[in-house]
Amino acid sequence: MKIAQIAPLCEAVPPPLYGGTERIVAWLTDALVDLGHDVTLFASADSHTRARLVPGRDCAIRMDPAPLKSDLAAHLAMLHQVRARAAEFDVLHFHIDLLHFPMFEEFAGRTITTLHGRLDLKDLDHAYRRWPRYPLVSISDDQRRPLRFANWRGTVHHGLPETLLPFSPRAEGGYLAFLGRISPEKRPDRAIAIARATGMPLRIAAKVDDADRQYFRESIEPLLDDPLVEFVGEIGDADKARFLGDASALLFPIDWPEPFGLVMIEAMACGTPVVAWNRGSVPEVLEDGVTGRIVDNLEAAADAVREVVGYDRARIRATFERRFSATAMARRYEDLYGQHLPIAGDCVRRFA
Amino acid sequence: MKIAQIAPLCEAVPPPLYGGTERIVAWLTDALVDLGHDVTLFASADSHTRARLVPGRDCAIRMDPAPLKSDLAAHLAMLHQVRARAAEFDVLHFHIDLLHFPMFEEFAGRTITTLHGRLDLKDLDHAYRRWPRYPLVSISDDQRRPLRFANWRGTVHHGLPETLLPFSPRAEGGYLAFLGRISPEKRPDRAIAIARATGMPLRIAAKVDDADRQYFRESIEPLLDDPLVEFVGEIGDADKARFLGDASALLFPIDWPEPFGLVMIEAMACGTPVVAWNRGSVPEVLEDGVTGRIVDNLEAAADAVREVVGYDRARIRATFERRFSATAMARRYEDLYGQHLPIAGDCVRRFA
Repeated sequence: MKIAQIAPLCEAVPPPLYGGTERIVAWLTDALVDLGHDVTLFASADSHTRARLVPGRDCAIRMDPAPLKSDLAAHLAMLHQVRARAAEFDVLHFHIDLLHFPMFEEFAGRTITTLHGRLDLKDLDHAYRRWPRYPLVSISDDQRRPLRFANWRGTVHHGLPETLLPFSPRAEGGYLAFLGRISPEKRPDRAIAIARATGMPLRIAAKVDDADRQYFRESIEPLLDDPLVEFVGEIGDADKARFLGDASALLFPIDWPEPFGLVMIEAMACGTPVVAWNRGSVPEVLEDGVTGRIVDNLEAAADAVREVVGYDRARIRATFERRFSATAMARRYEDLYGQHLPIAGDCVRRFA
Repeated sequence: MKIAQIAPLCEAVPPPLYGGTERIVAWLTDALVDLGHDVTLFASADSHTRARLVPGRDCAIRMDPAPLKSDLAAHLAMLHQVRARAAEFDVLHFHIDLLHFPMFEEFAGRTITTLHGRLDLKDLDHAYRRWPRYPLVSISDDQRRPLRFANWRGTVHHGLPETLLPFSPRAEGGYLAFLGRISPEKRPDRAIAIARATGMPLRIAAKVDDADRQYFRESIEPLLDDPLVEFVGEIGDADKARFLGDASALLFPIDWPEPFGLVMIEAMACGTPVVAWNRGSVPEVLEDGVTGRIVDNLEAAADAVREVVGYDRARIRATFERRFSATAMARRYEDLYGQHLPIAGDCVRRFA
């Protein structure tokens, strides 16, 4: 199949640091190449891919030292390139929310749009009602809740390359792990409370965005003065395998409708069980009693921690491989690409 | 003529507080109605206009207490409405930068796009080259500099309703005025230096945005401890007539390519002369020796202040009325609307 992947230009694909969406696009693209597809990736020029890269901008917007930039103009210019070549592809797979809707109406039936963010924003309803023909993919069923009416064609959970985070048969560190951002909706305060309730050490590896600096200073920093709690700051991909693999459990005490929660499957890849609050995608990602426990309050979370540290880590890893590998994700998309195409191979001729 | 004005949804038209673009759209729209045109305004529902209002959103985005909103989705949804009715209008006049480019390609010849902001942003060049058919209007000739190649059809300077700021025959306050935002590119520090050099009192009426709070604290606040300088904070439209009308001169010591500089013509409406640095639109807006002086350094600015306080304020007001009234602005647009229409009245039938 001739497939175009259209990534955001905010970060490189994959990004050197953060950038959830761009990371998923990178893994999906490479996995589709491995499955034998002819894939073209529209992304910033500093991207690295096994597919054919068409640079949509000389470098990722957030990495660009230019003082004055326009996200909108950059993405529109890239979409113009994509449209000029639309006839070359069997499927155009967009990862840029809804910005392409006005430009690909005549090709809508040959597009797939994965929505990567939360959808409970006020203005989305109006916009998605006005462009009902674009086939949409959610990253969890729960994510669809605010836009139930939309043209959903499937849910495809995120996946990771199987070799990215190696299986760790034993939790050498014996600590609880919190990994991600310090922010009120991620509830690091709950993670600290769980550590205290269980008497287990907690390591927090998290970045603090400018927007959350006040929250960190006022609500979290005072809690760090505890021998059980170690704040290790932000860690890169290279340290993640060790940090998650050595942990007895990952704590994911979120307080918002998380559309997916990549860190849960990162832990699972290492064989590490997860204790998570019952919000957003959590019940779809975790198998309660196998890969972790889903809880609603601190007491249940402490009990769950004592339970999951005894879970079979090999079984957690096996569940990851079956459900959340990049190949599993790519195969699910392959099905969707095939399903909604009128007749495979015919499109190219029709639009050529 | 049947004219559609398409405003940003960020602020109401006109905005209760700031919002340069929305204010201009309000004045232009009412002036076109006064000239006898049939005008439809696409804007937020909290707008007030003598034209027919089509609400593009229930309230202006910045005034909306909803915690999660999408600027992009809101504007795309409004543009979808506009496109559905495009055939009703002889001219579609857009004030939303380039967001409509992908959606109105078949109508491009019947559109006018006024660009209200600075154009020296990295990604604009690529985008404007890709959509060369949209007729563009600049708000000063200087504004075009970074995009010389674009499809410019004219420059239309901003205008104010003649009754908005009454003529003030005498500078009752005898002070120098600085009005706008506290920010490094507006150079309030230069205004203070001019006050010191001339020994004249200075009143600074300016808001401090969050982004500029550090600059205010570190670079400006220490300079305010001077009996010549009074910081009056932010003022509304109601106080502006008095503030500008009572001033002996307005100081406009900018250090950036200001695309227009509304406050210069606000001062002129009151009969108040302007001393401005030679950047951006300044030489197009000021008539050196009549409505003010254009300078390059502090010494020249101090000399200019001593000179302009003796200028004929009635002549400044007359210049404002001739060149910068809302009616003058509307007539200039009227010419442009007429010029680029194939045959007036024919379009409606062609697209109906």
